[in-house]
Amino acid sequence: MDSSHASSANDPWTSWDNATTGDGWAARQETRQKNSSSNNWDPATFGHPQAYQGPAAADDDDWDDDWDDPKSTPASYLEYKDPETSDPAGLQRGNSRGAAMKIPLNKFPGFAKPGVEQYLLAKPLVKPKEKIPVIIGDYGPMWIYPTSTFDCVVADPKKGSKMYGLKSYIEYQLTCTNTNRSVNHRYKHFDWLYERLLIKFGSAIPIPSLPDKQVTGRFEEEFIKMRMERLQAWMTRMCRHPVISESEVFQQFLNFRDEKEWKTGKRKAEKDEIVGVMVFSAMEPEAPDLDMIEIEQKCDAVGRFTKAMDDGVKELLTVGNEHWKRCTGPLPKEYQKIGKALQNLALVFSTSAYQGESDLNEAITEAGKTYEEIASLVAEQPRKDLHFLMETNHEYKGFLGCFPDIIGAHKGAIEKVKEADKLVATSKITSQDKQNMLKRVSTMSYALQAEMNHFHSNRIYDYNSVIRLYLEQQAQFYETIAEKLRQALGRFPVM
Amino acid sequence: MDSSHASSANDPWTSWDNATTGDGWAARQETRQKNSSSNNWDPATFGHPQAYQGPAAADDDDWDDDWDDPKSTPASYLEYKDPETSDPAGLQRGNSRGAAMKIPLNKFPGFAKPGVEQYLLAKPLVKPKEKIPVIIGDYGPMWIYPTSTFDCVVADPKKGSKMYGLKSYIEYQLTCTNTNRSVNHRYKHFDWLYERLLIKFGSAIPIPSLPDKQVTGRFEEEFIKMRMERLQAWMTRMCRHPVISESEVFQQFLNFRDEKEWKTGKRKAEKDEIVGVMVFSAMEPEAPDLDMIEIEQKCDAVGRFTKAMDDGVKELLTVGNEHWKRCTGPLPKEYQKIGKALQNLALVFSTSAYQGESDLNEAITEAGKTYEEIASLVAEQPRKDLHFLMETNHEYKGFLGCFPDIIGAHKGAIEKVKEADKLVATSKITSQDKQNMLKRVSTMSYALQAEMNHFHSNRIYDYNSVIRLYLEQQAQFYETIAEKLRQALGRFPVM
Repeated sequence: MDSSHASSANDPWTSWDNATTGDGWAARQETRQKNSSSNNWDPATFGHPQAYQGPAAADDDDWDDDWDDPKSTPASYLEYKDPETSDPAGLQRGNSRGAAMKIPLNKFPGFAKPGVEQYLLAKPLVKPKEKIPVIIGDYGPMWIYPTSTFDCVVADPKKGSKMYGLKSYIEYQLTCTNTNRSVNHRYKHFDWLYERLLIKFGSAIPIPSLPDKQVTGRFEEEFIKMRMERLQAWMTRMCRHPVISESEVFQQFLNFRDEKEWKTGKRKAEKDEIVGVMVFSAMEPEAPDLDMIEIEQKCDAVGRFTKAMDDGVKELLTVGNEHWKRCTGPLPKEYQKIGKALQNLALVFSTSAYQGESDLNEAITEAGKTYEEIASLVAEQPRKDLHFLMETNHEYKGFLGCFPDIIGAHKGAIEKVKEADKLVATSKITSQDKQNMLKRVSTMSYALQAEMNHFHSNRIYDYNSVIRLYLEQQAQFYETIAEKLRQALGRFPVM
Repeated sequence: MDSSHASSANDPWTSWDNATTGDGWAARQETRQKNSSSNNWDPATFGHPQAYQGPAAADDDDWDDDWDDPKSTPASYLEYKDPETSDPAGLQRGNSRGAAMKIPLNKFPGFAKPGVEQYLLAKPLVKPKEKIPVIIGDYGPMWIYPTSTFDCVVADPKKGSKMYGLKSYIEYQLTCTNTNRSVNHRYKHFDWLYERLLIKFGSAIPIPSLPDKQVTGRFEEEFIKMRMERLQAWMTRMCRHPVISESEVFQQFLNFRDEKEWKTGKRKAEKDEIVGVMVFSAMEPEAPDLDMIEIEQKCDAVGRFTKAMDDGVKELLTVGNEHWKRCTGPLPKEYQKIGKALQNLALVFSTSAYQGESDLNEAITEAGKTYEEIASLVAEQPRKDLHFLMETNHEYKGFLGCFPDIIGAHKGAIEKVKEADKLVATSKITSQDKQNMLKRVSTMSYALQAEMNHFHSNRIYDYNSVIRLYLEQQAQFYETIAEKLRQALGRFPVM
């Protein structure tokens, strides 16, 4: 029992797998809670290669700093206390032990389950001001893409301090490409945004985790560079998403004019009640309702695909990580040894006092140096190609780790609708209620399909780009080595 | 005590290092005997990479077979019994435990020491019929090279049997390029030749060991091929040596006409008394006697050079062996994993039901297959380049392992001559005896210099050839990989 639990504890997919058998909701919910500490960015297993990770520091200045106004977060989300960590907000996500967790939406036993019912049975369903349109395009249901897109450049990390220098932190400059205006944010602000996005959109849209929090080491500059690169990737991802990028909370994060506006916006976002499954109430697909069979099939297909891709991505990360270690560790050391051995041999040869062998000895020395150069090339190469392949797969692992929750929400809704006839028969709900439920679960399915179409189009673009880059860089790498070897060869006397 | 002895037991150089300090001959002689089981072809340390070595077999058909006439070997050489192995001839050289030993010339306590005196003090010094001329050429003392050289092609290994099929063995066909006539020989015949050459020339000329004897495995064909390749290298080496190739024993080995002639020649060779240091009696350098200071300097220089080169060669063999293991083991496995991971990912992608991604998925699949091809290329490459580098270094390790004995003989002679004045003063020898000693030690020095010049010219040629080949093959290898990657890259759709 215990060992099987342990082996699945790290896999967010376990809950969903279980959900397809057994007695449905209760079993799933229970499994969920067990697995709520599952971590998709576990650095021990799939974390980034050692090159980027210094030893974990006990303290992250950028984080330990309290919020200015800790009471501004609505009580309904923050009453939960993580029993193990006493983290007041249950928000502790990444830590040095690799026991990071996502915002535990499913840890609110009284919330998630009624959440589905609340959305499916609300009468009337209040339509929020902030709409999320779903249309039917060439590829099926899709989000509406804004006519002009923008990116956000994360740059210029600066050390700031407060409390008379007692607390220091790193502040990044964020500049939107459409407005060309800049705002400054610390890591903990990103983390706040991530949390808001997850709470608001997490049932419909995968929100990948931010880079790990507490991994900070001796090479501070290297660490800051790496974190900035990942924050940049995360921001670009968010800017690329038509729903996220257009959302009020996201826009406010990028476009506040002063401290006061930022705080007002922050409080407003934290009071937003259109969160969790209620986000679907903002959607109005312009299309006829789907039938239940199709809805269930689509949901299962998404589950199968994302689970399979999660496995594939993890496999690639595992082998990539192994390859990274070899390329930056034993392999260049070996080339260095070959280089040294050749140079030593030439040195010995030069003591022979035999005439006319100096050309050979110089050539052997150069060949030895060439192998030392190859050692450096080999050691540096992963940063030029494997790094990007790894980063992309990390990002996707982050996305994919969100799907068990998304699919869980959809399956929960589907189960509810399946019970509808019984509820009507026992007069617990009306026929109209049942019709509403069908319409709303259909909306959820449209949303899921729209999101999957967005996901697929991004996936195709991203993997095409990153594998092309990888192959191009690898080819160049081998060409460079071959060229150096030919140069070394050219120095040998012809006998 | 014991541990320091153990650590030096494998290094033939220990004896020589010791000889330069302490009380000379006696100490050296003692150390020698301790180290007589030292092995320069120890497969555990510097043996050929695993690819060639199957697990050792308990029995080597090619060897266990007794000689037809075991009594034909002169008693003076064969009375010694190895106390550990009870090998009647003390000839056991290579075995599966890596405790191979050379013909233990120094294991005859009553022989080696008088040997030097016997040569230095013989009156008159009988000049054998078989002369070994030493001349002074452009590079100093040198052997006379025959006007026409020849090689000997080892080919066509055939299984033979005798005793009504109870004993079977492998016979190789040896064809001299000058006569174009062939003779057949079994491994044990090569071994007999090696033994004769070592006994006859071992004080003047390094005779590298034959390939290991008892390393035979399940892949018999592979083993025979490897052994033949190494016998070929050994024969070519011997044919290239002006003294060895012209010697009666060597010529007889290659040119006997029938079984009877072979046996007669064999018996004659075994009765040859011009062996050990007495081989120098066959030499008549056409040059004035060298002075003792020069003789000693030359001898020390040879000692330093060959010791340093031995270290250099061993270093290259160690790193080469390590590299061989990586290239044939973990590295291709990793490329295979990368290939499989890419193909798996493409397989998952193809289940997305999203339109228009089949080009990408095919390209990723092909990229995956390319990495599988790269895995094979990587695994096969060492046979195309590193193999030859290793073989050449093995050969030189064999040569270099002979030098402690050669230098030991020279140093022994030098010590004797240094004692000459005292011996003259105590009337143990005459002034004429002393003059003879000086002349003879000078002859030894000319011989050593001639052999070193032969050694250097071969070394320069061999290392130039093999490193060129290595670099050329390595460059081609990397070019092939780059080309394959570019092909894979070309299949990706441009977006």
